[in-house]
Formats: sequence, C-alpha cells, structure tokens
Amino acid sequence: MENPIFRQAGEVTFAETDASGWMHFPHVFKYVETAEHAFLNSAGILVFRRDKGGWPRVKVTCDYHRPLLAGDRFEVLLDITRVGTRSVTWAFEIIKDTGEMAASGSITNVRVDHQGKSQPISAEERSALETRPV
Amino acid sequence: MENPIFRQAGEVTFAETDASGWMHFPHVFKYVETAEHAFLNSAGILVFRRDKGGWPRVKVTCDYHRPLLAGDRFEVLLDITRVGTRSVTWAFEIIKDTGEMAASGSITNVRVDHQGKSQPISAEERSALETRPV
Amino acid sequence: MENPIFRQAGEVTFAETDASGWMHFPHVFKYVETAEHAFLNSAGILVFRRDKGGWPRVKVTCDYHRPLLAGDRFEVLLDITRVGTRSVTWAFEIIKDTGEMAASGSITNVRVDHQGKSQPISAEERSALETRPV
Amino acid sequence: MENPIFRQAGEVTFAETDASGWMHFPHVFKYVETAEHAFLNSAGILVFRRDKGGWPRVKVTCDYHRPLLAGDRFEVLLDITRVGTRSVTWAFEIIKDTGEMAASGSITNVRVDHQGKSQPISAEERSALETRPV
Repeated sequence: MENPIFRQAGEVTFAETDASGWMHFPHVFKYVETAEHAFLNSAGILVFRRDKGGWPRVKVTCDYHRPLLAGDRFEVLLDITRVGTRSVTWAFEIIKDTGEMAASGSITNVRVDHQGKSQPISAEERSALETRPV
Repeated sequence: MENPIFRQAGEVTFAETDASGWMHFPHVFKYVETAEHAFLNSAGILVFRRDKGGWPRVKVTCDYHRPLLAGDRFEVLLDITRVGTRSVTWAFEIIKDTGEMAASGSITNVRVDHQGKSQPISAEERSALETRPV
Repeated sequence: MENPIFRQAGEVTFAETDASGWMHFPHVFKYVETAEHAFLNSAGILVFRRDKGGWPRVKVTCDYHRPLLAGDRFEVLLDITRVGTRSVTWAFEIIKDTGEMAASGSITNVRVDHQGKSQPISAEERSALETRPV
Repeated sequence: MENPIFRQAGEVTFAETDASGWMHFPHVFKYVETAEHAFLNSAGILVFRRDKGGWPRVKVTCDYHRPLLAGDRFEVLLDITRVGTRSVTWAFEIIKDTGEMAASGSITNVRVDHQGKSQPISAEERSALETRPV
C-alpha cells in the first residue's frame, strides 16, 4: 500500500492465539476494525451510536500471507478504495515489524441509521472520508 | 453439585483454545452465560432488552481443576445459591463427559433497568428463579 | 447451495453480539470453522495435531446479507468447491431458521505439516474430501 | 492498590462490547493477562513455550464496580500478593482515566512444565517475581 490514510500499531496477544500456536485467523478483522475506528474518531466521523447508527460490514475478504505469533508486533495500514452512495470500501494490510506482510484484504461497510437501515453517506462524512492526510 | 436447576451440554471449539493447546480460561464464563441464558429463557425470565434492562455481572469466581482441549465435551451444571433483593448468585460446575470436574465457580448478577441502574427483582422473577425443576 | 456436503445447527450467543445489538461480524468464521471441523471429524480427516499439522487459512471472504441477533438460530451449510494439490476451498452459507440467508462466503485452507510448511494433500484425504454424502 | 508492580494502559474496543453496550465482562481477564505478560517479559520471566511450559490459571476472581464502554481508556494495575512453591497470585485493578475503579480481582497461576504438570517456581523466577520496581 503506497499511501495509506492511516496506520496503527498493534501486538498479538496470547489470548488471540489458538492451539496451532498461531494467531486465530478472524482476529485480523478485529485489528482492522480497531484501526478503522481510530481513523474515524480522528476524522470526526461517527463510529456508532444507538440513536445515529453506524457502519456494519457487508463484505470482507482477507488473504493470509504469513502466520502471526503471540508477541508479534505489526502495523495496520488502511486505505479507502471507494466511497459509494451508501457504502465505503477499505483496503488493509497487516505488516509485521520485520517488514513482511502478514495479511491483506478489504472491508466494505454500509452506512445505516439507528434502525439499521441503509442511508446515504452525508456530504460531511464523504468529505472527511476523502480527505487524505498531508 | 447435588441438585442442579439446569444442565447444558457443550463442546470446546478450536477457536477457544490458545497456544498452550488448552481452552483459553475466560471462555468458561461464556459457557456459563450461555447456560444461564438458556435457563432464563426456559423459565420465562428476561435475559436482556434495551428497553427493559438485564443482569450484568458484579462478581465472578472460577477455580480451574483440569484443562479442557478442543473437542472435549462437557456439561454446564447451574444452581442458584442466593436470590437477594436486587441480585442473584449462581453456582456452576463444568463437568467433562469423563465425569471429571474441569471448573467450578460462581457468578453474581444484579438486576438493572434500561438505564443500567439496579432495581429490585420482581416477585414474578423471584418466583421463577426459586422454582426448582421437578 | 443446492447440495451441501455438511450442515450444522447453531445459535447466536449474547457473548457474540456487540454494542450495535448485532452479532459481531468475525464470529461467522467461528461458526464456519466449527462446522468444518465437525465435518472433518465425521470424515476421519485430521483437524489439527501438533505432530501432524493441520489446515490454516490462506484466504477468506464473507458477504453479510442480514444481521443476526442473540438467540437467532441458524444452520451452517458447507460445500467443497475445489480440492487443489495442497489446498481445499470451502463455500459456506449461514441460513436463519426463517429460511433467510444471513451470510455466505468461502474459506481456502492449505494443508501444512507439523512445522507449518505446506504439503500435498494425501490420496486418502483427497478421497475423503471428495466423497459426497448419499 | 498503593504500590503496583506494573501498570499498562488500554482502551476498550467496539469488538469487546456486547448488546448491552457495555464491555463483555470476561474481557477483563484478557486485559489483565496482557498486562501480566508484559510484566513477565519486562522481568525476563518465561510467559509460555511449548518446550518449557507456562503459567495456567487455577483460580480467578473479579468484582465489577462500573461499566466500561467502547473507547473508554483505562490502566491495568498489577501487584503480586503471594509467591508460593508452585503458584503465584496476582491482584489487579482496572482504573478508568477518570480515576474511577471499573474492576478489581485476583488471578492465581501455577507454574507448569512442557507437559502441563506443576513444578516448583525456580529461584531465579522467584527472585524476579519478588523484585519491586524502584
């Protein structure tokens, strides 16, 4: 990813491993969500409120390139590849502190209101999502 | 536990293990909660609703007697050891299908309203909690 | 999915929800893995052993069609769409007991030895994976 | 806790909440374990290795004083209250950045070898566990 809009450091905990000794694979989505929420907060965009809705996932993909072990340090790199009328698609990479890519993929979220119904992304949200860090 | 008020079968999944190969210890509380909710549903007692509240935990304890591995089958045994004015205390045991006890402990829940404030357990709830299966 | 090779019933627990009230999205992969392991066990195929290896994921995808709430009952439907030299690709669907599809996707696993290195799927494993239930 | 031997900052993620909107209660043990492992690493004490064993839990307790919500920042405070022949008991507190205590409790671990059998804590480990930060 050449020009990520957000980076967040993380570390694999023992609790996130399974009996194989490796990080249990769905935890990648937790790492990415945590970074996404940190970005949204930093950009002044709603993450979730019961009375205002949020961004549930409609599609996720992940390719696993290398295992992650307890104690491994990594960085989550995020980019936004598409802002649609009602949805936003994120690309992510999990890069180990050795420089090796552990995982990469995408997450598509739809903007929903407090009842969980899809609604258009507001002009303000769109502008914040499309602003790249300098 | 001589006379449990509820029993529920379960099986340890691979996802619940950690790198030691054993079930990651906090998952016991998930097993117990799932059994507790099944009992509450069977007894017609509220589990949780945003507009009616629920039963958050105020105290938990667990003793671990034997490890559980992926694929191990067990039964959760529940009893109610105290129904207070606003709280209820459960005792639990996790018994492997070999008959050996894997874990035992207690959970104390307080009855809260939709704002998360403690409220008295109703007469109807108390009666349902104190009714033992025949 | 017209002709699944395996079906497994499940129920969303309260522990699997998040503050939105919906099942937290990565748990779908836990449901699918649990069904996959039940199938492998039923077919006499290794799930995981430290000294024999297992089937780590190299690619996963999921489309979310409808939310799942605590207490929702569902069935995981599995099919095998490809058995490669060293990998196997599963298709899955999560069908609510109302008949509605909650999620669908795919998981590709690679066969690895006890050191985590990819190895060819054995003739015996291939035969078991390609046998459809009558 | 007047004089903790270790402090570690953390933040509640959305993934750790449940449908009540609050942090799902067993995650406290994950926060405490993560801090414990950071302390062990900083003190040069084994956390876990397949060929050397580790520190499985034999008893845990937790009192929940206040709810934690997604985004809440906290500090885990750890102390060691007893180093036995084969076990070590930790006290913990989870303190919100408002200064309020969210949870407190204890965890007792037993030192096991690579086969999961209890073994005496070595003189070196004992010394490291009993050294207080200046």
